[in-house]
Amino acid sequence: MEDEETHLTQNKQIILKNFIEGRNPRETDLEFKISKVSLRIPKGSGGVVVKNLYLSCDPYMRGRMRDFNGSYIPPFVPGSVIQGFGVSKVVDSNDPNFKIGDLVTGFTGWEEYSLLQKTEQLKKIQPGDIPPSYYVGLLGMPGFTAYAGFYEVCSPKQGDYVFVSAASGAVGQLVGQLAKLHGCYVVGSAGTNQKVDLLKNKLGFDEAFNYKEEPDLNSTLKRYFPQGIDIYFDNVGGSMLDAALLNMKIHGRIAICGMVSHVSYTEGIQNLFMLITKRIRMQGFLQSDYVHLFPKFLEFIISNYKQGNVIYIEDMTEGLENAPDAFAGLFSGKNVGKKVICITHE
Amino acid sequence: MEDEETHLTQNKQIILKNFIEGRNPRETDLEFKISKVSLRIPKGSGGVVVKNLYLSCDPYMRGRMRDFNGSYIPPFVPGSVIQGFGVSKVVDSNDPNFKIGDLVTGFTGWEEYSLLQKTEQLKKIQPGDIPPSYYVGLLGMPGFTAYAGFYEVCSPKQGDYVFVSAASGAVGQLVGQLAKLHGCYVVGSAGTNQKVDLLKNKLGFDEAFNYKEEPDLNSTLKRYFPQGIDIYFDNVGGSMLDAALLNMKIHGRIAICGMVSHVSYTEGIQNLFMLITKRIRMQGFLQSDYVHLFPKFLEFIISNYKQGNVIYIEDMTEGLENAPDAFAGLFSGKNVGKKVICITHE
Ligand SMILES: NC(=O)c1ccc[n+]([C@@H]2O[C@H](COP(=O)([O-])OP(=O)(O)OC[C@H]3O[C@@H](n4cnc5c(N)ncnc54)[C@H](OP(=O)(O)O)[C@@H]3O)[C@@H](O)[C@H]2O)c1
Ligand SMILES: NC(=O)c1ccc[n+]([C@@H]2O[C@H](COP(=O)([O-])OP(=O)(O)OC[C@H]3O[C@@H](n4cnc5c(N)ncnc54)[C@H](OP(=O)(O)O)[C@@H]3O)[C@@H](O)[C@H]2O)c1
Repeated sequence: MEDEETHLTQNKQIILKNFIEGRNPRETDLEFKISKVSLRIPKGSGGVVVKNLYLSCDPYMRGRMRDFNGSYIPPFVPGSVIQGFGVSKVVDSNDPNFKIGDLVTGFTGWEEYSLLQKTEQLKKIQPGDIPPSYYVGLLGMPGFTAYAGFYEVCSPKQGDYVFVSAASGAVGQLVGQLAKLHGCYVVGSAGTNQKVDLLKNKLGFDEAFNYKEEPDLNSTLKRYFPQGIDIYFDNVGGSMLDAALLNMKIHGRIAICGMVSHVSYTEGIQNLFMLITKRIRMQGFLQSDYVHLFPKFLEFIISNYKQGNVIYIEDMTEGLENAPDAFAGLFSGKNVGKKVICITHE
Repeated sequence: MEDEETHLTQNKQIILKNFIEGRNPRETDLEFKISKVSLRIPKGSGGVVVKNLYLSCDPYMRGRMRDFNGSYIPPFVPGSVIQGFGVSKVVDSNDPNFKIGDLVTGFTGWEEYSLLQKTEQLKKIQPGDIPPSYYVGLLGMPGFTAYAGFYEVCSPKQGDYVFVSAASGAVGQLVGQLAKLHGCYVVGSAGTNQKVDLLKNKLGFDEAFNYKEEPDLNSTLKRYFPQGIDIYFDNVGGSMLDAALLNMKIHGRIAICGMVSHVSYTEGIQNLFMLITKRIRMQGFLQSDYVHLFPKFLEFIISNYKQGNVIYIEDMTEGLENAPDAFAGLFSGKNVGKKVICITHE
């Protein structure tokens, strides 16, 4: 509802209330607010105004909710709208590269409309037979994380025994499928029986288990990998990493992608001595270090997706007002597949 | 004193009394014993009989004192003589490759005389201007560990900031010197002021500190590496590893060589999340995986030693009866430099 005189429109927004520390985010850390926004680019300003369609819920965003400036990405500003990856439609443009109606993906605000001045980070999406929301998942940052992490960090070989944690999530589901395409034997862990079922019966994992039903992860991994693990793609850290360390094969590789259990795990990792006896390489990575591979990734995944070699499970929450709950749910495993918020379908 | 009739001679020996678990070795875990041995090869047997001159005290031997068969090397047998690297003189031989009087280095028993049947692991030492005992240190396994670990695992570049723990020890002293030769800036840690002095004034480290006098290792490392650490060569694990993780530079490398503090450190490693934010590669290794480089190593080190580019600090204990104390001392830092036991000088 644009106001004719002021050109101001209602703008639903998600605000970070305060910095949080040493715990997982809760729904109440975020506030749903309605303010006003102009749908016209301010005079003299560059950039584009976009209508946000889909927002990506990503675990790394928790890191931006802390009062800490030393990380690879600055913190959010308490009292302000939070940002993340999204898919948006251009509604006004002062940038010759973007015209009204273009679909774009890149960093945007968690709100209905955003003025984006850094347009160099935006990528245009060609409308086609792939749903636009996939560009924040399978074809976006999480998919690329799986691709870069698996091929560039894990040094995979055909026949390798691969273990993936948080395996049904945005990153994990693709890691497992890439490993299968590569000729590996793949086991995934996840936190519900529904997810385990998806892993085995839809995503093509050789085996999967519900780690919440396993009292001793060390013996669980021994059961699934009697000969040991060549590659552990770690999305969770904590006790699962400790158990994996005990079950690695000689010259195994551990890709440290994420540590979503990190905040709630205070014991510390006990089994690093295994790095020596098994000569393990353990490597942390950020997908952003591999951007040069992005075009190759996109071509590879689109082609495999179209051929049916890769499938994608998305978990869509409707309505921006439900975004705080959707985001907090990442840290208790409420999401089944890639968590996306749909603000509006067009 | 050979008995003419039986050809039996007195043989001083060091015996492992019982397996030990979850703690560091003590002097009393080993027993000094006198038995009898024949100095002649038994009829029909191959191999050589050697008189042991020098024995190497190595921290990894603790691992063989546990009742655990899953490691890269089997446990010692309680009640029997322990083994380790040594320098020995052949006193009888049934092997055409070795003649009486040859000096050899390889695995031998902690005793005056040993019958060695696996002669393929023995290497002949050419008498020359390098003391024979150096072949269990600078020119032996520990020196080779430094060489393989630094060049093959750390990916060093000129100008890198390098941190070495247990820096005055057998491995650490050479790692620091190799890093200096490579054009790096090198800081070492050690457990006494005497060792710190050696590091700075004899071994050519740029800086060194006594970690036992530092209440907060994180701020200590911040002080010595205001721009962060490119390479951490880890000999100790535990709290020093945790502090180093907080001080790594982006794309830093951590070579996990040893974890001598491991047994006494129960907190677990807390800061592995840094692997992701700093994209760190952490790699465990065993020198034995790199044996193909041994001849190149020997040539390189001998030449640099003769040119005075590399020096070597050895800490010699006289008398096999003092071996238990010497060995246990590794785990409290009693040794200053490479710990060697001299059984006899000829
Ligand atoms: N390095 C990079 O460049 C990069 C880029 C993107 C993502 N990441 C990391 O990759 C990981 C996966 O991200 P994603 O986007 O694919 O998220 P996701 O897996 O879609 O969602 C998070 C999942 O983590 C699991 N989880 C939550 N708390 C847990 C705990 N305490 N212990 C074990 N599992 C827990 C839950 O699944 P269950 O039901 O299975 O427990 C939850 O569904 C995250 O750690 C993220 O930070 C790294
Ligand atoms: N990966 C391989 O292939 C390989 C091969 C050889 C050796 N290693 C490892 O390399 C490391 C060094 O071996 P080395 O032969 O050179 O031994 P070393 O340094 O000559 O002797 C051990 C030293 O460790 C330090 N230390 C003992 N307990 C400690 C503790 N709780 N915390 C911190 N420091 C402690 C002491 O020095 P301070 O006075 O400085 O405390 C002691 O002098 C060991 O961990 C060993 O197991 C690995």
